[in-house]
Amino acid sequence: MALLVLKFGGTSVADIDRIRNVAAHVKREVDDGHACAVVVSAMAGQTNQLVAWVEQAWGFKERQKKNGGEASAQYDGREYDAVVSSGEQVTSGLLALVLQSLGMRARSWQGWQIPLHTDTAHRAARITGLAVDELRARMTEGEVAVIAGFQGIAPGNRISTLGRGGSDTSAVALAAALGAERCDIYTDVDGVYTTDPRVVPKAHRLDRISYEEMLEMASQGAKVLQTRSVELAMQRGVRVLVRSSFDPPDLGGKKHAEPGGGLGTLVCHEDEIVEQNVVSGIAYARDEAKVTLLKIADKPGVAAQVFCPLAEANINVDMIVQNVSEDGRYTDLTFTVQSADLDRALEVLRKAKDQIGYLDLRGSTDIAKVSAIGVGMRSHAGVAAQMFSALAEKGINIEAISTSEIKISVLIDAAYAELAVRTLHSLFGLDSR
Amino acid sequence: MALLVLKFGGTSVADIDRIRNVAAHVKREVDDGHACAVVVSAMAGQTNQLVAWVEQAWGFKERQKKNGGEASAQYDGREYDAVVSSGEQVTSGLLALVLQSLGMRARSWQGWQIPLHTDTAHRAARITGLAVDELRARMTEGEVAVIAGFQGIAPGNRISTLGRGGSDTSAVALAAALGAERCDIYTDVDGVYTTDPRVVPKAHRLDRISYEEMLEMASQGAKVLQTRSVELAMQRGVRVLVRSSFDPPDLGGKKHAEPGGGLGTLVCHEDEIVEQNVVSGIAYARDEAKVTLLKIADKPGVAAQVFCPLAEANINVDMIVQNVSEDGRYTDLTFTVQSADLDRALEVLRKAKDQIGYLDLRGSTDIAKVSAIGVGMRSHAGVAAQMFSALAEKGINIEAISTSEIKISVLIDAAYAELAVRTLHSLFGLDSR
Repeated sequence: MALLVLKFGGTSVADIDRIRNVAAHVKREVDDGHACAVVVSAMAGQTNQLVAWVEQAWGFKERQKKNGGEASAQYDGREYDAVVSSGEQVTSGLLALVLQSLGMRARSWQGWQIPLHTDTAHRAARITGLAVDELRARMTEGEVAVIAGFQGIAPGNRISTLGRGGSDTSAVALAAALGAERCDIYTDVDGVYTTDPRVVPKAHRLDRISYEEMLEMASQGAKVLQTRSVELAMQRGVRVLVRSSFDPPDLGGKKHAEPGGGLGTLVCHEDEIVEQNVVSGIAYARDEAKVTLLKIADKPGVAAQVFCPLAEANINVDMIVQNVSEDGRYTDLTFTVQSADLDRALEVLRKAKDQIGYLDLRGSTDIAKVSAIGVGMRSHAGVAAQMFSALAEKGINIEAISTSEIKISVLIDAAYAELAVRTLHSLFGLDSR
Repeated sequence: MALLVLKFGGTSVADIDRIRNVAAHVKREVDDGHACAVVVSAMAGQTNQLVAWVEQAWGFKERQKKNGGEASAQYDGREYDAVVSSGEQVTSGLLALVLQSLGMRARSWQGWQIPLHTDTAHRAARITGLAVDELRARMTEGEVAVIAGFQGIAPGNRISTLGRGGSDTSAVALAAALGAERCDIYTDVDGVYTTDPRVVPKAHRLDRISYEEMLEMASQGAKVLQTRSVELAMQRGVRVLVRSSFDPPDLGGKKHAEPGGGLGTLVCHEDEIVEQNVVSGIAYARDEAKVTLLKIADKPGVAAQVFCPLAEANINVDMIVQNVSEDGRYTDLTFTVQSADLDRALEVLRKAKDQIGYLDLRGSTDIAKVSAIGVGMRSHAGVAAQMFSALAEKGINIEAISTSEIKISVLIDAAYAELAVRTLHSLFGLDSR
């Protein structure tokens, strides 16, 4: 017998039929003798409805209009959390009922019942503690624990939520606290792919991926797992299996969904990955925008004058390139921000024009960021050079570069994004054979 | 300053605009310097949706079909309560947000946060205790307490609910515990009427009605207040004002909604009612059905043989009439049950035919129960006689009679229900002048 945590997202519990399908997956594990905790999200669409009501209640649009487009989301996060957490509450009770109807013992657990303690950062709270003694005792006695994901209880006895995608984090935290054998994240895809299969039909599912690579994949736009849940899994050594809830519950005759057995992608420590590629995946993101400041003074302190007001406005800057100054006096500065922040970023820089001192300011969203990711890079020189040459051969101009130990990202014209992804996917031997 | 409890039902909080209207009513009371607790139901339609999901999850219809029409609702009440209570949770958070958006201090309270303790009779739990110290302290400091009605917390730390219409009971219990000046029940009608205005256009709103009369009105089909809430109000001496949430929040210029001031109906102790009518209202119900057993033995013990199996099947019997035996050996027995229970009642009696011994069994739903209600009856003789004569004059045959200290009910052919109600309404001087 093993302790397992199973997590099902919104599309996997979208209606009662889908919840029945979830129950069939749970039944398979129970019949195999495993003690199960099941973490559920809200039924697809419910969270959006609840958030829309909250914004209507607060008069969000009216305030936005009044403040000239500036979003004033200063409503009470505690009330937001009370409203929005109800979605997971509903699913947890419904799944417990379906499990019971199939003859299993089951009960639902809300965040405050476990309790799963968080800090008071409502709407994006962090887990501070998790009591699992009673849960574990009941689970080992054969009762399935159905846990409302995404929610916890904050000091002051108020309901808190962990932010969008927070159910992944609930599941990983629970698996860590329980010392679970594995945390299975059931989703609407059957694993993590070498790249987006819609762009590269030859993309293939990875049997295993390291935490570090998964983190880079996630933050690069492969939206399978919430980034925080991967960080937590890495910290606590939780083995996470990303798999599909759309697989037949009997697994097409396969008895187990053991990692490497051909089902899902195991996110694990790199030591567990025997056959390592230099590059494991190609990620791309189109939601960044480029800002260029022309002819700013090339002297100490000017970068701070640009980036401090942006930080104060809570705008995250990603890639930064400063050209070599030709005359030693002026230079151009380019950086990227999230597309959603572009207008605000330009506004902030326009207001600070006199302090910074620049000739012109330009913004553009016609860019894409393409990244090659792999822990094997650490021990392989020349990956960047290979990558730049291959792109150059296709006539793709690189506007900016950023690198980490296990990642090389380039900023290119958005029109070439798919071509670049396909080129790199082939280059690093990822096309399925 | 007074402590007030305001309760708003599902149609009063049906969408965000309606919730804004509720907030305007609350603001009026806050501006008048009152400390307010507001109890809310789920948005209209939400509870039905949640119950439908629960029944689907449990496979209710499939089980019903399998068991030959017998409804097997043996699902886990604790999970039902976890799911269904979420409706009130949502409304409480939304109203708190709207109140905050209007500049008021407000917070939502779930049953488990107050806590409002109940027994473990999930789906229809009874309140066993209610802690109001923190609530009262915050209310007197000017914070509006927005309370999710209908729900509490049962031993074992599980969410419980109080049964349909339970938010009325939440509100009255809270008013009792707080020692509130008044409990205002805002609904979609502007008070309690002498009878159903759709049947008798001359029906008028009562300024005041006694608890006892209201109990009879409620159980007779005037569905304004949950019966349990009236019982509780009577026990604890809570003055309940039934009023309309559709009234303009500024009350059309009237400063206060004081009882007797022309707004709503105050449900109170009869001592508070100065001008008492002999009859205060005429109620009618069409949801009863008549069962007749022909030619049963006229001997001791036969009634027990009829009613014991019905009681075992959880079928409530209301009126009972046994004809005088003509030959001393056989008689006919007639009684009423809820229409919804008729088929089950007939089935039970068919199965028990050999033990009971009867010639024939008949069931009919073409009946109506019409009642005259008034505390004044206690001191007035001849009310029944007046009532029977008036009905006889109209050619209405009385099939059965039941009486209490303050009520006379007759069972008649359903076709004459409206005529009977109008006749009695005039007879007892209730037509509006």
